[in-house]
Amino acid sequence: MLRKCRIPLRFFARTQRHFSSDVTDVKEVVVPKDEVKRFIERCMTCVGAKLKHSTALADNLVCADYRGHFSHGLNRTEIYVQDLLHGLAISDREPELMRETAATAYVDGCNLLGPVVGNYSMNIALEKAKEAGIGWVVAKNSNHYGIAGYYSMQASDIGFLGMSFTNTSPLVVPTRSREKLLGTNPISLAAPGKGDDAFVLDMATSAVALGKIEMASVKHSKIPEGWGADRNGKITTNPADVLQGGGQLPLGGAETTSGYKGYGLGMMVEIFCGILADAKYGPNIREWKENERLAELGQCFVAIDPDVFAPGFPDRMQDLMDACRNSQKSEGESAVLVAGDPEKLHMDKCDREGGIRYHPNQIIKAAKLAEELGIPPMKPLDN
Amino acid sequence: MLRKCRIPLRFFARTQRHFSSDVTDVKEVVVPKDEVKRFIERCMTCVGAKLKHSTALADNLVCADYRGHFSHGLNRTEIYVQDLLHGLAISDREPELMRETAATAYVDGCNLLGPVVGNYSMNIALEKAKEAGIGWVVAKNSNHYGIAGYYSMQASDIGFLGMSFTNTSPLVVPTRSREKLLGTNPISLAAPGKGDDAFVLDMATSAVALGKIEMASVKHSKIPEGWGADRNGKITTNPADVLQGGGQLPLGGAETTSGYKGYGLGMMVEIFCGILADAKYGPNIREWKENERLAELGQCFVAIDPDVFAPGFPDRMQDLMDACRNSQKSEGESAVLVAGDPEKLHMDKCDREGGIRYHPNQIIKAAKLAEELGIPPMKPLDN
Repeated sequence: MLRKCRIPLRFFARTQRHFSSDVTDVKEVVVPKDEVKRFIERCMTCVGAKLKHSTALADNLVCADYRGHFSHGLNRTEIYVQDLLHGLAISDREPELMRETAATAYVDGCNLLGPVVGNYSMNIALEKAKEAGIGWVVAKNSNHYGIAGYYSMQASDIGFLGMSFTNTSPLVVPTRSREKLLGTNPISLAAPGKGDDAFVLDMATSAVALGKIEMASVKHSKIPEGWGADRNGKITTNPADVLQGGGQLPLGGAETTSGYKGYGLGMMVEIFCGILADAKYGPNIREWKENERLAELGQCFVAIDPDVFAPGFPDRMQDLMDACRNSQKSEGESAVLVAGDPEKLHMDKCDREGGIRYHPNQIIKAAKLAEELGIPPMKPLDN
Repeated sequence: MLRKCRIPLRFFARTQRHFSSDVTDVKEVVVPKDEVKRFIERCMTCVGAKLKHSTALADNLVCADYRGHFSHGLNRTEIYVQDLLHGLAISDREPELMRETAATAYVDGCNLLGPVVGNYSMNIALEKAKEAGIGWVVAKNSNHYGIAGYYSMQASDIGFLGMSFTNTSPLVVPTRSREKLLGTNPISLAAPGKGDDAFVLDMATSAVALGKIEMASVKHSKIPEGWGADRNGKITTNPADVLQGGGQLPLGGAETTSGYKGYGLGMMVEIFCGILADAKYGPNIREWKENERLAELGQCFVAIDPDVFAPGFPDRMQDLMDACRNSQKSEGESAVLVAGDPEKLHMDKCDREGGIRYHPNQIIKAAKLAEELGIPPMKPLDN
């Protein structure tokens, strides 16, 4: 792999940096989407990624930020940079189709960047769906693939239903257990309405994202009952107890509020991913933020052509979404939303502002990364 | 339709009977599974159902009771009897295959009994999976199909993955809404382990079953936060508020504990069922316990042959299930379970006792039904 940048020794220390959150002298900055994309491409090609692979990753991360999921966007660039530098992911080949039927495919991700594996697999799912009505594709040897919705939306963009699932490092304790055995294992389903409207579900099967618990810990505030358990498996409102030896709870929280359903859904995702794909699964997956071992994740991609059933899918989908949005609001609420609506609001804001508005810490982090890689930094809109 | 029994006028009044729960002079009774099945068959053939259709329904209801889901078993016989008597379901034809591809099929349930439509559709899904690796079948014009797991297990019994989904009458309020727009819309996934072991998820996407809230109301006890909302959409711990003009909450409960995820999952099921099938959907489905209109439910059945991906699925599935079961228990817990384990415990108990142990009210209800239909009652084991 050709490295066109100077690689600081720090990158080989296999540690994660954390930026303090008390920066006061830097303001929020708006950066055009294209500029963010070019920056991420520069970072990745600099450490040896093919331009095509760098673009696949950049599109995915920019999509996350544009939709308001900042944890999965530019913020993670350094993780992918380090993955390539440490040989935990590669970029000098393409995924391989190992087996297929009229409607299924089994893909070897060959330890390439997750979005490279994801795009390749979702494309096969779409082609299968065009011929057989459905395509169900499973990939092994993959890596972090970004937001799950990025792939499912590739289907809804052409009038199909799309789904995507990935297993992840173990962070969630099964109901009644004190061991972290399952990841936050997301489910995404995208389904087209009329025009540009779509239903886009993209949810972890844990009660909440880890970041929400980390944030509460930083602020020394309590967390609601149902988010996490302590090291003894007892539900706690102290975020530190969750982060220090405890675990996240599945969707539903406690057993009395049906946490076993979220646990079952987390298992479902693991079955579609690690178990079907013969990838790492459950407790066999490397720990979160560990970079000693390969991720070897399993992922699953589905596309369905609704017209092989009944015509008129987008009309009915639109009608159902509108029935929800136009329903009587609960006392004190301003709007009933449908999955994907919060993201639409964020994208509208970005469009109005001419780009993505980043927290100052994010800008500093990107600037330091640029400096260390010896590449030009991002140019904000206002500069 | 030939009716071999005397039909009391009461049945035409289109009302639901409720038995008092304070019966004290009748004890729990064990009835052999075969006897329950024959009784349900007698009830159904008596009101004009074909024997084949009666058997399909009886097998489904007995399966529910055997697995411990008494709300969906013998208890519902009268609902199906009334459906036939009122012309809300029919039994004088078979479901029709309307469209198909190598991996999909679109079925017209022709308003037949739900299990007739379900068995027909799941069988097609299995045949498609044998040829194409996956079968995804959607049915319209269906009725209550019993427990969702009954169909998914038809796949796991032969080493395949099975899924089944149905929409249901609207009982659940979307996050931030005060209108009941979605059903309890269940998800079932069954996946084979080694030997007879299997993962069997069968869950409503509401926080809990309606019956749990009804039970709390009868007992005048509070319900946990997260089960239901009052008529203003406010979360309540008073079950009466939920039942009188309020609504059930989706899995996850309040917005702070991610109830919008359960709402999204309920929408997902509706998309696979009513929207894909061009059946009734969401608020367009008749109210629960209403029997003026046809149900016209939509249902979805999926089968997947894991061998079209990687060999060894049952071994990995078993390993993951055992990792959960053998994990360190939370303080005070006696066992970590996997989806389907509570049902296995119940089936073991039935096998030990020689049949299904019914609550006395259930026995009285069945005896009255037998009397009214003029057919022989069930014979308990102890008689």
